[in-house]
Parts: sequence; C-alpha cells; structure tokens
Amino acid sequence: MAMTGCAGDVLGAYLRTQATAFLRGLRLHEEGGSPRTGVPPAAAGGESGGGADASERSDAARSLRGAARRISGSLATFRVVTESSWADGLRTELVWLSSTLADEHAYAARLARLMDALHRLSGTAELPAPRGTAGALTVGSARAGALLERQLTLARTRAHSATLQALGSARFHAVADAVAVLASEVPLDPIAARGRIEDVLVPLAAVAETRLSAAVAALPSPEDTHPYDADCDGPWHEVRRLLRVHRYAREALGEDVTRAAAAGEALERHRDASEAAAASATAARTPRIAPATAYALGILHADQRHAVESARFDFRQIWVPAPVDAAAGVPVDAPAGARGHAEITAG
Amino acid sequence: MAMTGCAGDVLGAYLRTQATAFLRGLRLHEEGGSPRTGVPPAAAGGESGGGADASERSDAARSLRGAARRISGSLATFRVVTESSWADGLRTELVWLSSTLADEHAYAARLARLMDALHRLSGTAELPAPRGTAGALTVGSARAGALLERQLTLARTRAHSATLQALGSARFHAVADAVAVLASEVPLDPIAARGRIEDVLVPLAAVAETRLSAAVAALPSPEDTHPYDADCDGPWHEVRRLLRVHRYAREALGEDVTRAAAAGEALERHRDASEAAAASATAARTPRIAPATAYALGILHADQRHAVESARFDFRQIWVPAPVDAAAGVPVDAPAGARGHAEITAG
Repeated sequence: MAMTGCAGDVLGAYLRTQATAFLRGLRLHEEGGSPRTGVPPAAAGGESGGGADASERSDAARSLRGAARRISGSLATFRVVTESSWADGLRTELVWLSSTLADEHAYAARLARLMDALHRLSGTAELPAPRGTAGALTVGSARAGALLERQLTLARTRAHSATLQALGSARFHAVADAVAVLASEVPLDPIAARGRIEDVLVPLAAVAETRLSAAVAALPSPEDTHPYDADCDGPWHEVRRLLRVHRYAREALGEDVTRAAAAGEALERHRDASEAAAASATAARTPRIAPATAYALGILHADQRHAVESARFDFRQIWVPAPVDAAAGVPVDAPAGARGHAEITAG
Repeated sequence: MAMTGCAGDVLGAYLRTQATAFLRGLRLHEEGGSPRTGVPPAAAGGESGGGADASERSDAARSLRGAARRISGSLATFRVVTESSWADGLRTELVWLSSTLADEHAYAARLARLMDALHRLSGTAELPAPRGTAGALTVGSARAGALLERQLTLARTRAHSATLQALGSARFHAVADAVAVLASEVPLDPIAARGRIEDVLVPLAAVAETRLSAAVAALPSPEDTHPYDADCDGPWHEVRRLLRVHRYAREALGEDVTRAAAAGEALERHRDASEAAAASATAARTPRIAPATAYALGILHADQRHAVESARFDFRQIWVPAPVDAAAGVPVDAPAGARGHAEITAG
C-alpha cells in the first residue's frame, strides 16, 4: 500500500512509524525506573549519579520526545490530510508532553555544558588573570561551578518530579492511548488522503519551508546584533522550531535531511549557549557570593554569549545561500573586510 | 646625491628624514608644556582633561616615538652600512627612550579601550544578565569602570612623571644631541656605504623579512591555543616587533608598505586587547570589590580576550599566505568545518 503514490499511505506510514517509536520509548522509560539521584552522570562530573537507570531513562525520554515532536510536527504540516479536529487535539497534547519531558533534560544538559566550559576555562595556564594568580581564580571558578551545580540540580530535580507527575497523569494516559491508536490506524481525511504525493504532501511541505525561509530572511544581521544582547535570541529560537518542522516534513516525504539536521544542530547549540549564559548571569545575582565567584561567572557568561555568536555563524554557513553568507555569515569578531585579501608574503 | 644607486645615500637620506622628524616632535612636545591633569581627553570619558595641551603633547610624543623606532629599526637592519659601534650605542638609547615614552600613551589608550568596551557592554538591552536585572549589572560595570579608571590613571600619572624625568635627564639630552648630529650627517661605513642598493641594502632588508617569516611560521595555530590563555600572546608580540622592523626597512628602500602597515595595526590591536584583558583581571583582584563589579570585570576580561582572537584572525587574513589561511586563519569560534559548504536552500 505505502508503495503507491497516495498521500495518505505515505503520511500514514510515517505517523505509524513515529507512533511505534513513541510507544517503545515510553516502555523503555518506564522500565528505566525512578532515578536514585537528581544529578545525571553527565552533569555530576564523574559521579555515577543515577547510573545505568538514569542514562537509559534519558535515552528513552529522548526518543520519546523525538517521536512526539515528529508526530506533532507532521500533524501541523499535513493537517488537511488528516482528520483535522483529531489532529489539532493530539498535537496540542504532544506539544505539552514533549515540552514537559524536555525540561529535565535541558537542566541536566545546561549544567553539563557550564561545567565543561568552566573546566575548559580553568584549564588554561592563567584563568583568567595574569600569571601567579591562577590559584585564586581557579578557586573562583570552582565556587562558580558549585553554585551552578546547586542551582541547576535543584531545577532539574523539580523538572524530574514534574515529569514523573505528568507521566502518571490521566492527561498523559489519554495521549498514550491516542498514540497507541495512531500506531495501528491513522485517522485521515478521505478525500485529501487519496490525492497524489506531488499534489497534496509536496505543496504542504513547501508551505512549511517558505515559513522557514521567511523567518531566516528576517534574522538580524551580525552587524546589527550585539553578542551580549540576549534579547536578539528569540528570532533564532523561532527559526530552530520552523527548521525542525520543515525537516520532519521532508523526512515524511523520504527526502534527505542531512543538511537540515546539521543546521538544526547549530541552532540547538545556539539555544543551549543562550540558556547557559542566562544561567550564569542568574547565578551571579545570588546574594553574598565572593567576588572571585562572580568574576568567574562573568567570564562564563561572556564565553557562552560568544558560543551563541559562533553557533549563528555556523548556522549561516550551513543554511544561508552562499551569495548572502559572505556578507551575513561573518561572525561579529571576523569583519567582512578581513576576508579574502590574504596574499603571499615574499621571502 | 641621494638619487644615485649608492646604499649610503639612500640609508642616509632616510635616517636624516627621521632624525628631523624626531627633533620636530621633540620641539612640539616641549611646546606642549606640562599637562594639567593625568587623564587625557580620550580616557577621561568626556572630561576635557589636559585639553589641547595634552592632545598636542600626545601627538608630538607619537611622532617622536615613531621617528625613534624608525631610526633604531634601520640602524639594526642596516647596521653594517653605518659606523656599527656608534649605531649600536644610539640604538640602545633610542629603544630606552621610545619605550619610556610609550608607557604613558599605553596606559591612556588602555583605559580608553576598556571604557569603550564597558560602555558597549552596558549599552545592551540587558548587560549581561536576563531581563529585569540590567540596572544592577549596569551598576556593576559602572563600578568596574570607576575602579579601572582609578588604577590606570594612577599608572598613567606615574608613567607621565617618568617621561618628564626622562626628558629632563642627561641621558636624554645625549640622545637628542646624537640625533641632532644624525639630522645633518650620518656616520656611515666608508666601504659598505659605497655599495649598490641591490648588493647592500636589499639583502639586509631580506634578512629582516626572513626573521619575520620564521616568527610568523612559528606562531601557534588557533586550534592549539585557547582564547583565555595569555601565555600564548608572547610570540605574537614578537611578530609585531619584527613586522615593524621589516616595515621600516622596506620604507627606507622606498617600497610600498601598505599591507605591512595593515597587518601591523591588527597586531597593535592584539597587543592592546591582550593588555586590556590583563588590566581587567588585575582590577578583579582588588580586595573588597562588590560581586557585581567582579562580574562585570569578568565579562570585560573575556570580551578583550575574544578581541585578541579576532586580531589574530585579522592578521592572518592580511599577512599569512592564502593557502595556509583557510586552515590557520580561521578564528577559534569559526570552525574550519563551518566554512565553504553553504548551499542555496530551496523555496
């Protein structure tokens, strides 16, 4: 059936596959059991944390989130090919679920990211002061690390409880039941589903791509943005969301999404760095911290803001049309003028 | 005479020109009078500081330093064309003088640079923390600015006294006398000076350029260095020095030095950013500063260290041979992999 050029078959096959992945992820997540600690291995800097259970559970949660996003994304893009009222309802619930599941992972990843950055910064011969003072400042970054770990672990533990609560709720069980139905039979619109792929799915996927292109075109140029101005991050987060929807639509059509995936990774880095910078700024507002701690947090904040710039540069390099990127894709600290006119020096 | 192809005539003409510029700069500097304040206009952030006098004096000091560097540089490169023992003695004295004169300017420029950076950072919607806290952090950067101004103005005032003392010393008057002699007659080596430019000056200039090329080739690649590791700045400072010597040698031969000057400016930025970062790190070690102040200093430090990276990138773009620069000239935050493979996105 799915081999024919019928829109319903192709969309149905994709949705069924994702629904099955969702249910598998859910089973694995439940088997993973409850964590022994709020700190995942990655974030605990060497401690075993929840150990196997925790890492299994986070893998399961990841595939669960991925399937939920793919289902809700394709239900949005190909809405008219499905039973729209059903699609709208399920989509809302899946968005709720995947965002709930995302929080716990996000806090763990943020802590791990900040710990890595602090370690990298302290690893230098003289973080980040003139010779002879490395000791004092390493202390500062150690304190900063302890502070961030305390704050983000608390947030992560709260998010974990929220996840467990969500997974035990009637609301969640209704979503799971709906997805279980989806795994066997996809409610489709009788007329649209009979249409040819080129006539139904391709135009709908093109709409999603047009939305993305418009959002990318609307992104502020590096010249107009400041590395420390997190108010400019919003449009990039929106592009990340639209790129994901575009990617899942192409995925449903069986197209190659390698480049979209690479561009998406750059925007994930953008989001992570943006939130890590905000977390270090928040930590710096903790009352009664030592100046050395605040100093390390300031360096950490700036470091993550520069990672934000770097991720934007990478995204433009991968995604923005070549003629544009020389002008728009040059990072703030690599002026367009600095490019190209390198010559051979004699002797 | 200077129109002939004789080495002595060409070198003599260049040295006499620079000696005259030195004496003019000296006269202007003395006419500039003593400053009314230790803070030059640029660094005083709006205050008139020493006003006209101060700026005139700094212009005069600049041309004085430039002439001194050009004389000592060409005496080093073309030593054998001159009376070597005389050349060595004068060169030592000119290096002492220009470094003494440089300090005052350096502290003023460093303070101006850091104030500009702080202003730029505070100018953002939310320096450098999440919304709603801009106030608190602007306070931090204001305090950081006051602290830096206090420390660097003190250093600058000390350097100013040292300059005045030097300009009043017997040692300085001996240098001035030697340069006065140089302005009228250059002590040359009778044999070497009669040689042809291509046989005498060009090979000596080539030696200076070879030294430079070796130092550039020995620079660590961006992959091997860390933006926060100021221990890696040394080789770049050495390249800056050798590039200047190379440039003055070419200047003496009447060649175009536009590219060398541009590359030199990038390395000046490198030096300035490196020292500004160190100054903010030093300020952060001041006892009993507020966490908000330390936090702002941390951001300032990281910001200047990224300016260091950016200057290295610019230098490589301008100076390093094209084939190398794709691999070696990419800044730390713009991975080589991110280059080139941008494609047109459909739709």
